[in-house]
Amino acid sequence: MPASSSTRSGERPRVAVVGAGQLARMTHAAAIDLDVELRVLAADPAESAASAGAMHVIGDPRSLEDLRVLAAGCDAVTFDHEQIPHEHLRALEDAGLRLRPGPSAKRAAQDKLHARRVLRDLGLPVPEFAEAASLGDVEALAARTGWPVVLKARTGGYDGRGVVMAADRAEAGRVLGSGGEWLAEAMVPIARELSALVARRPSGEAVAYPTACTVQREAMCREIHLPSGAGPGADDRARDLALELAEAIDATGIMAVELFETAGGELLVNELALRPHNSGHWTIEGSVTSQFHNHLRAVLDWPLGVTDLVAPAVATVNVVGPADGSDPRDRVAEALAVPGAQVHLYGKAARPGRKLGHVTVAGEQPDEVRAAARRAAELLQGEELA
Amino acid sequence: MPASSSTRSGERPRVAVVGAGQLARMTHAAAIDLDVELRVLAADPAESAASAGAMHVIGDPRSLEDLRVLAAGCDAVTFDHEQIPHEHLRALEDAGLRLRPGPSAKRAAQDKLHARRVLRDLGLPVPEFAEAASLGDVEALAARTGWPVVLKARTGGYDGRGVVMAADRAEAGRVLGSGGEWLAEAMVPIARELSALVARRPSGEAVAYPTACTVQREAMCREIHLPSGAGPGADDRARDLALELAEAIDATGIMAVELFETAGGELLVNELALRPHNSGHWTIEGSVTSQFHNHLRAVLDWPLGVTDLVAPAVATVNVVGPADGSDPRDRVAEALAVPGAQVHLYGKAARPGRKLGHVTVAGEQPDEVRAAARRAAELLQGEELA
Repeated sequence: MPASSSTRSGERPRVAVVGAGQLARMTHAAAIDLDVELRVLAADPAESAASAGAMHVIGDPRSLEDLRVLAAGCDAVTFDHEQIPHEHLRALEDAGLRLRPGPSAKRAAQDKLHARRVLRDLGLPVPEFAEAASLGDVEALAARTGWPVVLKARTGGYDGRGVVMAADRAEAGRVLGSGGEWLAEAMVPIARELSALVARRPSGEAVAYPTACTVQREAMCREIHLPSGAGPGADDRARDLALELAEAIDATGIMAVELFETAGGELLVNELALRPHNSGHWTIEGSVTSQFHNHLRAVLDWPLGVTDLVAPAVATVNVVGPADGSDPRDRVAEALAVPGAQVHLYGKAARPGRKLGHVTVAGEQPDEVRAAARRAAELLQGEELA
Repeated sequence: MPASSSTRSGERPRVAVVGAGQLARMTHAAAIDLDVELRVLAADPAESAASAGAMHVIGDPRSLEDLRVLAAGCDAVTFDHEQIPHEHLRALEDAGLRLRPGPSAKRAAQDKLHARRVLRDLGLPVPEFAEAASLGDVEALAARTGWPVVLKARTGGYDGRGVVMAADRAEAGRVLGSGGEWLAEAMVPIARELSALVARRPSGEAVAYPTACTVQREAMCREIHLPSGAGPGADDRARDLALELAEAIDATGIMAVELFETAGGELLVNELALRPHNSGHWTIEGSVTSQFHNHLRAVLDWPLGVTDLVAPAVATVNVVGPADGSDPRDRVAEALAVPGAQVHLYGKAARPGRKLGHVTVAGEQPDEVRAAARRAAELLQGEELA
């Protein structure tokens, strides 16, 4: 394989993205800079990335035929979500396509039980866990860790979907009885949630971004702050752990590692994502190279960009569809009046609770940039943030 | 007129751009952030902005009918070049369309003689000039200022086209004899060229970017540097002059004022552009708000963004088609290996001397960022810069 993935002289490289949501949309904006042709798999032409002008194939990620049409002639195939059958990834790779990340690495983001085992086998810190094939498995874990126990769907969950705190045996029984495959975890006393973001090329070069603190509400990431405010050494430990993991599983492209910092200062890996990630949106204005640029550079096996902060403090606040169903688009001018507010709207129809955009502010003082980003998000949402 | 140009609740604003070159392309990338629908007028779908996914109307800016089709239903109409008949601009405005800038302001960028007179009447500094309706006019100017005399086509010139240094009467006669309308100017001893960039809203708010130094080779802008290195007070004078001019002519959107700094430290206005400008490409990574974001914000009458530098030094170097006809796209990986190099390629077919992209580097030391940006541009061009 050549060092550069593109072998057609004088033509722009083509990257296929399975998915056409906001991650693909922001990747398209980066693709314009680098003159990369992005081709996304969309359910319909109004999807976020397609409406931003990315070339699109209409199709379904569960259809191997649709995936083949998407990937034909592309220099790399990447993803903006996890909902692709693993056997299809294998089939595409067997057909000679360059999957970035490859099926084995991607599985760590698709199957939470598999991820737990990989992390444990690498000696990386995870909450105590067990496969929850039966209620007996959950009770055995609870006997060691106490109730409540966290039950997680092995596949398909995001933004809190597929995660249940089971207070007791009866509740755990109801969850397992609802069907699907589950993983049980000890409930961990969390001081803070962190995100360690890395980019890695197939040829092995990897770079890590400064560690961010993420703030969740109703199990959805709502704010991202740098500096993280984590305890001594935690930022560096998170970064080193993410780099070690990326190499161990042969991750390519962006990988986000979400971690818990416990009250005792211990780090435990919570979730993995092998794609650009909400917790990395701050990099668009807050880092020399955005996660979307580095994702493209990584999947094309191009040299990776500098990940330094451009200012001492950066805050990103998500814009979520307000309860009254109104559309933040109608209030963009108000939000832009907040000095330094960088507004991103994803072109999605407004629905209560749906992620519709984000605001980033970079500056000198953490409190000030956070307040400004929150203020702009509140103006967009037309309601106060919790 | 409402404070915000968009009156359709829950829909994204639509901005028409007459033109589909790299300026429209980079405006489209900003439009994705702000969820603005950009609709460009392209000669063919392979043009720079259209190939980046901007919605496009195929047409000709000299056709009023094509302009009407482009502008229909748009909240604002703006431009990425000057080649639109003035009477068409008047007709579109008379039809109720919001031209940003309006025809009167745009004329200052379309007709160099008109611009000179406007500047002179405002008391702003310009080189000594005269309408060159006849050879006698040129000789009269030369009698006061000496030969050579600079002859400029009143309309249609760019990147040095339409500008001739006439060494004597005979050469001036040949130029005037070639047809078209001309302006004659005194040759000015130039120490440095500067660019003052402002954004202004229809409602009057205006912001100015830090003044940049531009370096021309073969009459084409090749490098942009900040800080400018200009003499005491020159940056502020250039900025104040641009703000004064923008208000005086009711400019809207981005306006770039290109100035000469003379050996004596005097500033003279050279050219005007009422649109995003090559000398402002550094703002994408080098300023909190890029010229493309502020152009959209300005034409939609939205609050303008902060124009501060994100680092003490910024350099942008244009990537021009190399003499051997090879394509910089084939060397992008080499250029990305230069630490901090932010590469932009415009998706245009490679031809010797054609602007195909640019590289920006931001950092602490002017010499270092300039060297890095030049190095990346050299790697893309596959040849040494002059």
